[in-house]
Amino acid sequence: MARTVGPSTYFDPATIGSLESATADLVRRRIDALGPAYRLFYERPLQIVRGAGVHLYDVEGEEYLDVYNNVASLGHSHPRVTAAVAEQAALLNTHTRYLHPAIVRYAEELLETFPADLGHVMFTCTGSEAGDLALRIAKAHTGGTGVVVTRNAYHGVTTEIAAISPSLGGLGSLPPWVRWVPAPDAFRVDHVAAGFDSLGEWFAAQVQDQIDDLAAHGVRFAAFVADSIFASDGVLPDPAGFLAPVRDVVARAGGVYLADEVQPGFGRTGDAMWGFQRHGTHDAPFVPDLVTIGKPMGNGMPIAATIVRPDVVEAFGRDMRYFNTFGGNAVSVAAAQAVLDVVREEHLQDNAATVGAAIQSMARELATRHPSIADVRGAGLFIGIEFTVPGTDKEPDEELTLVVVNGLRRRHVLIGTAGIDNNILKVRPPMVFSLHDAERFVSELDSTLTELEA
Amino acid sequence: MARTVGPSTYFDPATIGSLESATADLVRRRIDALGPAYRLFYERPLQIVRGAGVHLYDVEGEEYLDVYNNVASLGHSHPRVTAAVAEQAALLNTHTRYLHPAIVRYAEELLETFPADLGHVMFTCTGSEAGDLALRIAKAHTGGTGVVVTRNAYHGVTTEIAAISPSLGGLGSLPPWVRWVPAPDAFRVDHVAAGFDSLGEWFAAQVQDQIDDLAAHGVRFAAFVADSIFASDGVLPDPAGFLAPVRDVVARAGGVYLADEVQPGFGRTGDAMWGFQRHGTHDAPFVPDLVTIGKPMGNGMPIAATIVRPDVVEAFGRDMRYFNTFGGNAVSVAAAQAVLDVVREEHLQDNAATVGAAIQSMARELATRHPSIADVRGAGLFIGIEFTVPGTDKEPDEELTLVVVNGLRRRHVLIGTAGIDNNILKVRPPMVFSLHDAERFVSELDSTLTELEA
Repeated sequence: MARTVGPSTYFDPATIGSLESATADLVRRRIDALGPAYRLFYERPLQIVRGAGVHLYDVEGEEYLDVYNNVASLGHSHPRVTAAVAEQAALLNTHTRYLHPAIVRYAEELLETFPADLGHVMFTCTGSEAGDLALRIAKAHTGGTGVVVTRNAYHGVTTEIAAISPSLGGLGSLPPWVRWVPAPDAFRVDHVAAGFDSLGEWFAAQVQDQIDDLAAHGVRFAAFVADSIFASDGVLPDPAGFLAPVRDVVARAGGVYLADEVQPGFGRTGDAMWGFQRHGTHDAPFVPDLVTIGKPMGNGMPIAATIVRPDVVEAFGRDMRYFNTFGGNAVSVAAAQAVLDVVREEHLQDNAATVGAAIQSMARELATRHPSIADVRGAGLFIGIEFTVPGTDKEPDEELTLVVVNGLRRRHVLIGTAGIDNNILKVRPPMVFSLHDAERFVSELDSTLTELEA
Repeated sequence: MARTVGPSTYFDPATIGSLESATADLVRRRIDALGPAYRLFYERPLQIVRGAGVHLYDVEGEEYLDVYNNVASLGHSHPRVTAAVAEQAALLNTHTRYLHPAIVRYAEELLETFPADLGHVMFTCTGSEAGDLALRIAKAHTGGTGVVVTRNAYHGVTTEIAAISPSLGGLGSLPPWVRWVPAPDAFRVDHVAAGFDSLGEWFAAQVQDQIDDLAAHGVRFAAFVADSIFASDGVLPDPAGFLAPVRDVVARAGGVYLADEVQPGFGRTGDAMWGFQRHGTHDAPFVPDLVTIGKPMGNGMPIAATIVRPDVVEAFGRDMRYFNTFGGNAVSVAAAQAVLDVVREEHLQDNAATVGAAIQSMARELATRHPSIADVRGAGLFIGIEFTVPGTDKEPDEELTLVVVNGLRRRHVLIGTAGIDNNILKVRPPMVFSLHDAERFVSELDSTLTELEA
C-alpha cells in the first residue's frame, strides 16, 4: 500500500533532509508527536496559516489557489460562518438533551431540501459517524448484515465503516458480510459488449449478483452503499440516471439504499442539492432510504448527519436510542445554519453548475493539445480529469498524474487525485470558485503539462 | 429498556399535553424533525438559551446551577475558549495534511501530561471515534479480537464501541468477542467473603476468568477497556490503586489496557490530570497502553483523541494510516489549547480536589439526617451519592433517585444519575464549581429530600 518509490501526493519522511531547517524541525516534531499514521500533502509539505475564499496562504505569505478543499465549501473563513460560530460560542454550546429552537429550525430547513419521504435527521460530528449510524439503523431495520459497495469505495474510518471501504485496506480486508461490485465507470465499462442496454442496467446486474452471492453464503442483505458521485472510484457522474435500476434491485431484495452524500452534497453537483437527485426525474424521483451528509455542512465545523425514512429508523430509535455528546451542539448547528443560508443566498449551486461547466469545457480543449488527458467528466464543481498513456488501451498514467499534482503545487495550485490508479485529477474546489479562478487553474494545468511534455 | 411508568430523568412524549403551548409546539416540531431516537432531559424539558460559568439560563431568563455538564469543564462560554475559537475560525480552519505549528505544540503539551511511554496522540472529533480508533489499533497490534469490559460500561456509540457498551443494549447485545466482569464496586462487593485480600485482587481475578473464557472459546484476547472512574457503573474511584492488579493480568495475557478517560480526564479527579494515575504510585506509576480522551477537551468544541504507546501503533500506523477530516482541525485545536492553558492557569485540578472534598463532606453530613443516602464516594468533582431503601440490604432506590433529580430540577439544580439501577446521583459539574456553588447544591438536595420525607 505505502508507495516507497516514484512521485507521490504525500511527503516522504525519508526526504526530510531536503527541507529547509525550520520546516524540517517542525516536521520532525510532528512525526514525534503524532506518530506514523499521519501524512502530509505533497512532496514538499505546505505550512498553511491563513485562508480566505478560494485562497490559502503559507507561512511566507505566498498565495495558493485551492482546488482541493470541499469542506470549506463557502470559501475559507467565510465571514457569515465565522460570525455565527463566534456569536453562538459566546452564548451557549451544549448538547441536544435540552430543548433549543435553533436545531429544530435547522433540521426542518435541511429536511425541506430532501424528498418528503426522508423525514428525520440525526446529527453526528463526522461523516464516518453518520455512516456508522446509518449502517446500525440499516442492520436493525432489515435484520440483515450484508453490505454491497463499489470496488474502491471510501465511506469513512470507524471500524464498521472502514470495513466497507476497500480503498483503505484493499479487497483482502473485507469481512465476509461485505461484497464489492466494479464501479459504474462510463469511460471504462463497455456495457454493450457485456450484453446490457445501459450502464445502469449493467451496474444493477453487478449488484444483484453480489446480493445473490450473499444469500448463497447465508448472509442476509442489509444495504447497498454508494457515494452518489463515486469520488474515490474516480468521479463518475454520468450518464445521469444510471443509479435508478440499482435502486429497484436493492428494494426488491429487501435491503436499504444508503446514499453517501458527504462528498457531492450541498449543491456541489450543480444540478441539484444532493448528488442522488441527478439519478431521478421529476416524475420518478430517486429516493434513498438513508442519506449521510457531512464535510461542507459546517464549512469546517465538525457536523454531519444521517437522514432517514421514519419507518426505517422506527425500531432502532425506540429500542436503542442515539445520543452523540457533540452531535448537533449549538455552535455546530449555528455554523450549519449559516452554510445553508449562504448556499441559497449566494446561489452557490448555480455557480457550481456554471463554473463547473466552464472548467469541463476548457479541460476538453486542453485535451485536444495534451493527449494524456483521456477523459473529462463531472457534475458542477466535482470534476475528474483522467490521464492515460497515449497510444495504449486506456492504460492509467499514475506517474504523470502525481507529477502533475506536485507540479501544480509548485505553481501554487492545490489539487489531489481520485481513482484506484491515482490517475484522475480530482477538481473539487470551494463552491465560490469563479470563472477567473477556473481560468487560472486550467492555465496552470496547461503550463504544467506543456513543461512535462517539453 | 425504555421506562414506560414511574419517574424518569427523561421527558415522556405522552405527557406533551401538560406543557405550556409554545413549549409543546417546539417539542412536537422537534420530534417530527429528529425522530424517535432523541430524548429530552427531565419530566419537564428545559429550553436552555444561554450559559455562563456554572450557570445555564432558560428562555424565561431563569438561572440554573449546572451540576451535570462535564463538557463545559471550564464553565459555559468560557471567554478564553470563545476568543480562541473566534480568532482561529476567522483565520483558518482546515485539516491536518498541511503543516501547522499549533497542532504540534498542542500535541507536545498534551503528551507532557501523560507518562512518557505514551508517546503519540491521534486526533478525532468524539470520544466514540477515539475509542473506535483505539480498538482498531489494539486489535491490529495484538492480532486478537477479544475485549473485556465492565457490567454497565459505556464507551460510545459507533457500531464497534456500542458493541462493548452493555449499558446501551444490555448483556444480550454483546457479540461473542466481548466478555463482561462485575464492576469493582467497593460499596457492594465483599472481596473478603469472596476470598481475596483486596478489591483489586478480586477485580483482577474476574478479568482473568473472562480472558480464560475467551481463550476457551478460541477468541484471542485483545484489550481490557475501562472508564478509569467507572461512571456508568456508578462512579467507583476507591480504594485508589485497585486497578494495579488488573493492569498486570492484562499485560501477562498479551492484551492491551485501554483507559477511557473521556469522563474523568483533564484534572477532574482532583488528584491527577488523568483518572488512571490514581491507581499508580510514584514508584510504580500506572501506565495504560492506550488512552482515550474527549468531552471537556475543547470545552464543547468537538475534539477528542487517542493516546498510544509508539510500539502499539507502529504496524497500524504504517499499514492502515488514519485520517479524520475534522479531527485536529485548526479551530478545534485552538479551543483545546485554550482549555489546557486554563486548566493549568486557573488551577482547576486543585479546585476540583478542594470543592469535591467539601461536597463529599457535606453530603456525608446529609446522610446522617437522610437515611436513604447509603454511600458517598468520589474523586475531585466526580462524585456519586447512592440511594438505597433504608432497612434493606442495600436495595437500590431508583424511584427516589429519579424523583430527586426532577425535584432538584424544579429547584433549579441540574443533575443526572449513574449506575445500572439509576440510584446514584452523578455529581459532575463544571470544574470551576465554587464552594458557594457546592453549598447551594447540597442545600437544595437537603431541601428536596426533606420535602420528600415529609
